[in-house]
Amino acid sequence: MLKFNPPLRDLQFVIHDVLAGANGLAELPDYEDFDAETLNAIADEAGRFASEQLLLVNEQADRVGCSWSEGQVTMSPGFADAWNAYRELGWPSMCAQPSEGGQGLPKLAFSVVSEFLCSASHAFVMIATINHCTSTCLRSSATAELQEKWIPALTNGEVLSSMCITEPQAGSDVGLLSTKAEPDGEGTYRLSGSKIFASGAEHDLTKNIVHLVLARIPGAPAGTRGLSLFLVPKLTDGGQSNGVYCDGIEHKMGLHGSPTCSLRFENAQGWLVGEENAGLKAMFAVMNEARLLSGLQAVGMSETAMQNAWEYTLERRQGRSPQGEQPCLLIEHVDVQRMLLTQKAWTEAGRFLLHWTALLMDQAESHPQIAKRDEAEDLLPLLTPIVKGFLSENAQESTSLALQLFGGHGYVTETGIEQLVRDVRITTVYEGTTTIQGQDLLIRKVLSDGGRRLNRLQTAIRHWLDNHSGRAELLNFCKPLAEVSAMVDRVTRQLIDRYATDPTSVLGACTAYLRLMGHLVFAWAWARMAAVALSQQGDADDDWYSLKVETARFYFNQLLPEIKALELAIAHSPKSLGRLMGASNCSEEKRHES
Amino acid sequence: MLKFNPPLRDLQFVIHDVLAGANGLAELPDYEDFDAETLNAIADEAGRFASEQLLLVNEQADRVGCSWSEGQVTMSPGFADAWNAYRELGWPSMCAQPSEGGQGLPKLAFSVVSEFLCSASHAFVMIATINHCTSTCLRSSATAELQEKWIPALTNGEVLSSMCITEPQAGSDVGLLSTKAEPDGEGTYRLSGSKIFASGAEHDLTKNIVHLVLARIPGAPAGTRGLSLFLVPKLTDGGQSNGVYCDGIEHKMGLHGSPTCSLRFENAQGWLVGEENAGLKAMFAVMNEARLLSGLQAVGMSETAMQNAWEYTLERRQGRSPQGEQPCLLIEHVDVQRMLLTQKAWTEAGRFLLHWTALLMDQAESHPQIAKRDEAEDLLPLLTPIVKGFLSENAQESTSLALQLFGGHGYVTETGIEQLVRDVRITTVYEGTTTIQGQDLLIRKVLSDGGRRLNRLQTAIRHWLDNHSGRAELLNFCKPLAEVSAMVDRVTRQLIDRYATDPTSVLGACTAYLRLMGHLVFAWAWARMAAVALSQQGDADDDWYSLKVETARFYFNQLLPEIKALELAIAHSPKSLGRLMGASNCSEEKRHES
Repeated sequence: MLKFNPPLRDLQFVIHDVLAGANGLAELPDYEDFDAETLNAIADEAGRFASEQLLLVNEQADRVGCSWSEGQVTMSPGFADAWNAYRELGWPSMCAQPSEGGQGLPKLAFSVVSEFLCSASHAFVMIATINHCTSTCLRSSATAELQEKWIPALTNGEVLSSMCITEPQAGSDVGLLSTKAEPDGEGTYRLSGSKIFASGAEHDLTKNIVHLVLARIPGAPAGTRGLSLFLVPKLTDGGQSNGVYCDGIEHKMGLHGSPTCSLRFENAQGWLVGEENAGLKAMFAVMNEARLLSGLQAVGMSETAMQNAWEYTLERRQGRSPQGEQPCLLIEHVDVQRMLLTQKAWTEAGRFLLHWTALLMDQAESHPQIAKRDEAEDLLPLLTPIVKGFLSENAQESTSLALQLFGGHGYVTETGIEQLVRDVRITTVYEGTTTIQGQDLLIRKVLSDGGRRLNRLQTAIRHWLDNHSGRAELLNFCKPLAEVSAMVDRVTRQLIDRYATDPTSVLGACTAYLRLMGHLVFAWAWARMAAVALSQQGDADDDWYSLKVETARFYFNQLLPEIKALELAIAHSPKSLGRLMGASNCSEEKRHES
Repeated sequence: MLKFNPPLRDLQFVIHDVLAGANGLAELPDYEDFDAETLNAIADEAGRFASEQLLLVNEQADRVGCSWSEGQVTMSPGFADAWNAYRELGWPSMCAQPSEGGQGLPKLAFSVVSEFLCSASHAFVMIATINHCTSTCLRSSATAELQEKWIPALTNGEVLSSMCITEPQAGSDVGLLSTKAEPDGEGTYRLSGSKIFASGAEHDLTKNIVHLVLARIPGAPAGTRGLSLFLVPKLTDGGQSNGVYCDGIEHKMGLHGSPTCSLRFENAQGWLVGEENAGLKAMFAVMNEARLLSGLQAVGMSETAMQNAWEYTLERRQGRSPQGEQPCLLIEHVDVQRMLLTQKAWTEAGRFLLHWTALLMDQAESHPQIAKRDEAEDLLPLLTPIVKGFLSENAQESTSLALQLFGGHGYVTETGIEQLVRDVRITTVYEGTTTIQGQDLLIRKVLSDGGRRLNRLQTAIRHWLDNHSGRAELLNFCKPLAEVSAMVDRVTRQLIDRYATDPTSVLGACTAYLRLMGHLVFAWAWARMAAVALSQQGDADDDWYSLKVETARFYFNQLLPEIKALELAIAHSPKSLGRLMGASNCSEEKRHES
């Protein structure tokens, strides 16, 4: 059975000491009363709920799972109680405006709470946090009437919601969507079509469910420019069926507690959200938050995996220690330490990136200084694909290393570790695959503006380096940070040049570029965390800070060197082998011997 | 539902054209009649059985799995039929001597058949091939009487067998085993104790089951030098219980078709295999074959994952091709090609390494020239940890990339891909974890003889380079091969020096060294395969050979660069942080704000 000890100290270190997050928020008029103490109190409460109630639900969410029968989905035991407790704690309303019945807290608070929930139950987060995204979408695109009708209900948790995007023929390529929406002459539309992979689109937690559905109005252009977004409730105002039917749920590798629904719309009444044919833009307001959530899941589950592996290696005795003790604790083996430090380096820099991104979201939305708002608005599109793509890939390694440390016991269901490996596997797939994150980052965010946004990040890093390179004890962190920063500039210039003449080979470099950029951010994160830890270490021998510094050292020595391989891979990135790839491998016919 | 198309052409290419395997065997008196045609016929038959019968059983092996009730294990539907068909095909007797009722085929034939079985059903291979290992063990260590009694029954499949090693307190550290074996004064022993993780130790396929059990005779030295090996049948000659009880089976992440048993021995009669206190040595004769089997599983499952992903990308249309077609086939995207080529590069070099290793086993056993035998005997201990450690780790990536290519559909049970990801996960854990393979390779196989064995491999590579560097079209393969070869020498010298003064930091480099050595072997494999493919390509435009050459190019450009990161990681490998690691991370207490 898994344990989870909320990493409050590390969270406070990252947010208060490294990011100065609460101070940053105090500059924003909306959050001037929000201080470190408030954030700590919220984190405490979230940690308690996650470790004391949610973690217990998670094992049954996997083992029993949710089930479908005749159009109805039943959630796993304890799920409804957890949802009600979450409502009572007021979290569905956390970031909503006071005028909507909300608490008006910053997105930083949302990311802190969500990280802990993700550590305790991925499935629960899928259900419980979706209203946050739905409200964001309605707030930015829906009519005042629609907002007034639905946001309070979403905010108090009376209804839950779902995103209905994918169709059998349209996964990564949403331009292929074919669900129809016909105007009914009364200002609303009638939707017909089938959706798959709609998480939480049917369950027994709330009476009504609000679906956000991408569909096509007759005569709309083909492709993504002909998509419109609709709000389609499960039930009519009179509580009757609105023509939305759940035809089944998927049996999946993991995430058994979250129903992945097939939905059928039959003349279902829908309300347009945003302009006609501008549905993708309206949906994208959600996408950034959904991608932040994927990153939170990745880091949250990695934290739990690491904690449990760490504890196991402090209990289990196998083999001989470097000092000759036998049997020694697993943790005394240096290769075991390598695996634990790898998890720690990925997870804690991930935490930094997540909460920094949330802070930037708050600043982009309402910082009083235009320059600060602009900077945040430039950094966010750059960081979002890294949050989604880099953190989710690293989480595959982190959770898998935890299983490896448990050995055969990790492969056994009982310990709970293998559930984390199965659950986290979807995070590199949904909300845009890693390929799509890489393309988004390199093509749309970096090449599209000739590296202007990237330069904003690089300037901030150079500025930090200028201020810290004088400290001798930081040399081993500043030097490699400067190197990866220079490498990113060099590689980006090459790719900008190459894109003009050979765009396909640039597409072949996207995934490697995503990892390279991930390392740029992580190298900065670890340099900053090491600098603060070294300053705060003081005279007392504080193991917590020492281990933080050693983890930074480990990151720079053992993980950052991946960039050497990435630079070479990008320089020789594959061109398309179209014809060859199509023709050859599947025709493995037997060669006839003479 | 998964498909499997036996890769006969690639197998023949590797064995006949690159390794000249059948010719190599013809030099051995035992196998002078064994030629390419015989091997192809065996491969054909294995491919047919695997793709037509075994693959169907595999899905039920996962979904229904085996079950335990009151000490009895029931295998999943179809399993017994597959086992009987396998027996009728004569494969349990494949490598046994004709005098034992066997066919006297080389281990190369065993590895070919097993690879295809592994592609179709990991669980089946766990059960069906164990007798091969058990017979090897008995042949090398047991008394003639014991051999005569059991080997024919193992050979014809009348009984099956299991290895009982692990105990709750003794996993990687077998020196902690505590099962007792008391001499009973009649030349046999009485065993008492508990074993866990014993694969196939109870089932309904054969009436009797033979267990090979590591246990400790009273007064034996502590640790591994006090272990003895015993043969313990489930039933007495009279068909009564011999005091061996199955108390349950594990619920696991994957491999649901293979019962992972907890066994209790209560005064069970056992026969000593080999000398008293020399049990580990006797068991190790099996370990090399068991590790080859782990590699076969890794590559076999990777092949199936790749084939199914490849076919999916040739059917599914999403997105826009470099030529502007929309929607285009997935395979037209260059990042999709990157993922497929990664799988192909890992899988096909893995195939080379596996069958080369099997060929060396045959040569080590019975080559008439001492020099050839010596060379094989030097290379085998070096290659075995690479086969086990490198191939199993690469298979994690290969199967996971297949899931990634299927996208959300890969996460759904229906497509079968996620079963491969779950099943293959155990291969880095059992039969010695990756850490143990790395330590075995670096400490026991390389440092222990000052690099003498390694030099044997390097000499062979340099010899090949001398013979091929003149071909201009091979320059892009020979140059990086020479580089990795030089890097291995350089790094090994550093490690030899460092081991004298700082052995702990060398232990911290073991896993990276294992990967570096894996790349040395893979670079040679791809250079050799490219050289043959370029020679055979001829005038006709043969896509099969072209794709082989492009895959070699991909390996050298995209995967081999990992060695740059490995060299740095080894140079700065972590020292032990013993005290720090123990103290810090799990005490995540809240920091009290002032």
